[in-house]
Amino acid sequence: MYIDNPASYTDYYELTMAQGYFLSGRHKKTATFDYFFRRIPFNGGYVVYAGIQELIETVKHLTFSESETDYLKKEGFDKRFIEYLESFQFKGNIYSAREGEIIFPNEPILRVEGDLLETQLIETLLLNILNFQSLIATKASRIKVAAGENSVVLDFGLRRSQGLGGIHATRAAMIGGFDGTSNVYSAQRFSIPAGGTMAHSWVQSFENELTAFRTYAEHYPDNTILLVDTYDTLGSGLPNAITVAKELKDKGHQLSAIRLDSGDLAYFSRKSRTILDDAGFPNVKIAASNQLDERVITSLKTQDAPIDIYGVGTRLVTGHNSSALDGVYKLSSVANKPKMKISENIEKITLPGKKKIYRYFNNDGTFYGDAILLENEKLLERMHNPTFPAQKSDLNSREFESLLIPVVLNGEISEPLQSVKEIAQFSKSRLKRLQREYKRLDNPHIYKVGISTKLMESRDVLMKLIKP
Amino acid sequence: MYIDNPASYTDYYELTMAQGYFLSGRHKKTATFDYFFRRIPFNGGYVVYAGIQELIETVKHLTFSESETDYLKKEGFDKRFIEYLESFQFKGNIYSAREGEIIFPNEPILRVEGDLLETQLIETLLLNILNFQSLIATKASRIKVAAGENSVVLDFGLRRSQGLGGIHATRAAMIGGFDGTSNVYSAQRFSIPAGGTMAHSWVQSFENELTAFRTYAEHYPDNTILLVDTYDTLGSGLPNAITVAKELKDKGHQLSAIRLDSGDLAYFSRKSRTILDDAGFPNVKIAASNQLDERVITSLKTQDAPIDIYGVGTRLVTGHNSSALDGVYKLSSVANKPKMKISENIEKITLPGKKKIYRYFNNDGTFYGDAILLENEKLLERMHNPTFPAQKSDLNSREFESLLIPVVLNGEISEPLQSVKEIAQFSKSRLKRLQREYKRLDNPHIYKVGISTKLMESRDVLMKLIKP
Repeated sequence: MYIDNPASYTDYYELTMAQGYFLSGRHKKTATFDYFFRRIPFNGGYVVYAGIQELIETVKHLTFSESETDYLKKEGFDKRFIEYLESFQFKGNIYSAREGEIIFPNEPILRVEGDLLETQLIETLLLNILNFQSLIATKASRIKVAAGENSVVLDFGLRRSQGLGGIHATRAAMIGGFDGTSNVYSAQRFSIPAGGTMAHSWVQSFENELTAFRTYAEHYPDNTILLVDTYDTLGSGLPNAITVAKELKDKGHQLSAIRLDSGDLAYFSRKSRTILDDAGFPNVKIAASNQLDERVITSLKTQDAPIDIYGVGTRLVTGHNSSALDGVYKLSSVANKPKMKISENIEKITLPGKKKIYRYFNNDGTFYGDAILLENEKLLERMHNPTFPAQKSDLNSREFESLLIPVVLNGEISEPLQSVKEIAQFSKSRLKRLQREYKRLDNPHIYKVGISTKLMESRDVLMKLIKP
Repeated sequence: MYIDNPASYTDYYELTMAQGYFLSGRHKKTATFDYFFRRIPFNGGYVVYAGIQELIETVKHLTFSESETDYLKKEGFDKRFIEYLESFQFKGNIYSAREGEIIFPNEPILRVEGDLLETQLIETLLLNILNFQSLIATKASRIKVAAGENSVVLDFGLRRSQGLGGIHATRAAMIGGFDGTSNVYSAQRFSIPAGGTMAHSWVQSFENELTAFRTYAEHYPDNTILLVDTYDTLGSGLPNAITVAKELKDKGHQLSAIRLDSGDLAYFSRKSRTILDDAGFPNVKIAASNQLDERVITSLKTQDAPIDIYGVGTRLVTGHNSSALDGVYKLSSVANKPKMKISENIEKITLPGKKKIYRYFNNDGTFYGDAILLENEKLLERMHNPTFPAQKSDLNSREFESLLIPVVLNGEISEPLQSVKEIAQFSKSRLKRLQREYKRLDNPHIYKVGISTKLMESRDVLMKLIKP
């Protein structure tokens, strides 16, 4: 589960509204909320959807403990309302895209149905989980794309993660394509491969660097990565590493890698590769770390830096430099009547009613575009650009899939839970079906997301009703 | 406590190093580590130090549970080492500045002493806690400084916080000067004032806006903040709010505030103020939210926007746009021998040996500058710029305080724990003693941090020994 006491992991206004609905007898009206985001972070072309599994597990166990109801009493909440909360359980439905799916702005990628009180109450929890994990899965995906299939990318971020955010940053990084982590807590909790060898302090704590390297190799002969930049990378780190590599070889072992953690990584990695090769160690890998992200890695690649393993920390786990996905949770119907929010800002106007998403494909199996349509629609001939409806795309002969599947029905989880590894594999298979123009780090091609004619009409009718 | 199972909330290499120290019989050597950061985030002039109390509580309870030792067994760690961990407890000392203190780059604001194994093992946990909470306390302080003493600043960030990072973001925001939060979980856990009223969904869920406002006011007659921008701020939101304000007045109550959450906040707040005043409601306050931070608030202030309450979310809790404080934890002595790390980068060279910090004052009680000196030094006549030693400051006649106090001695907490409120009050009193030039949002005056002559000499001698 995501957190103990999920009921209090919420904004205060969810509770004042819930009480308001309850005391005015409106809490049992049916309601539908949509989750979607508006802008792709990092200037990118897609988002990797993550967090849904933890959300549904947590929603299933969302109950009010005594400490929480005591708190609400002290805060002056009404006795009858608190009594109601004491037996509260989420009994609604959640429809969602699969975790790991590749998603795009303004699609209602998740829909919650239930009574007004229960659907409102889970808002903050839902946003907190989905916004962050999708942000980091997306960042991880960009870094993996930059590093390339043949490079290993490892999460080293726990020390600089935003507090306990590090726990799920690691989970999300794996979904986005990372190969492992230094974070022991998350490795244990989510069955993720973990690893790590030495810090500068190990080297410093010995009389000299060579003794430090030797001692480490003695205890970990088959898994030694030597950190070579504590004193002088080329002057002492590399020569000492080669001494130890030879000693390991004489005993039938092999030095795994050296690690560079400062200085010009392009220069030092090329120099190190030559020195290692010349000394007869072409199989000793080069690991690099120090403020890496997808842009630095791309730059290293274009400079032919022979780096095999990238350790990525701060900029991965904090989603540098888009610190949040701007996902929102918007009411779309009450008592089966469509609802919408009108804004001065045309792209902030929401889509009313119960909706679903069809994903259309090109002949080669790659994604063509997504259409948002009303729940009860069956087939679409075309879709419209939501803000410029005259711009349309024909969909007639294309293959499609419905993206939303029921993940919670009447409060019960309706899909088998998957391991992080399985989710990551699914995500990888989907990312392959996204054409490379959308994966460009900057100024990517913009993926088509349209709305059906019926949805467009329903929106326009409702808008006129609200603002004649 | 910060987290259950703090022993596994660590980087894998802390454990491989710990085992290496243990198996090579070095784990009982005494060691000293320093915590410090190198760059002030947000382009600012100071950092508010936060997290220390949670750190020491957690370190005190750091033990290895069965699930953790089982994990280590599966990972192939040595039986003897695991046995050692089974009875592990931190028995060392921690000296630290007080939580809430105003701190500056390159000062060893916290020192850990103990055996090599225990001091190494807490590294990741320590960095994770202090880096993030200090980052957010600093961001909060900047926002409060921008908003001014007479404005109320509230944390609304939970939905966009970096996962569970939201828990401590709220705590840190209070230490940095915030007045309250929407985050119920943290409010309960840290005894922080919480509040909140309604979202757009409340308004949308009713047949019309006026009914929504009326119903809310009926249930919360003394604490109603009406969100006026769901459909049309000036066209319907304000007029409906005034209707409800009149109805409340007739019943002997008072509308607390209106809230603006979109559009041009400067324009709408001025318009709203005039309309409210003209309708006879000069005491109804104006709250504003929507992507606020210290820069947006400063801009609103210079435009004379009459906003009384600022709700700050994403940009507070994620530390936009410096997503991490770059705090590090560096070995400074082993077996009472000073240790240092040498770098290609002159400002990354660490300061060897056990050190303390004196803070010097001006005659008016404001901070003059901080000196880093060796533990056994008593009085300083001058301090040197660490990178340009020829630049010195005379300290002779100045008042000073020693900043580091023992907070853990032999594994036991040695200072009474304080509430978040008390820490916030202390922080406020300290910030008052920082001259305003250091509080400027951009290009602030640079605070003096120097080193003693003896420390400088010790560093230079050691450097020549390592790199003759």
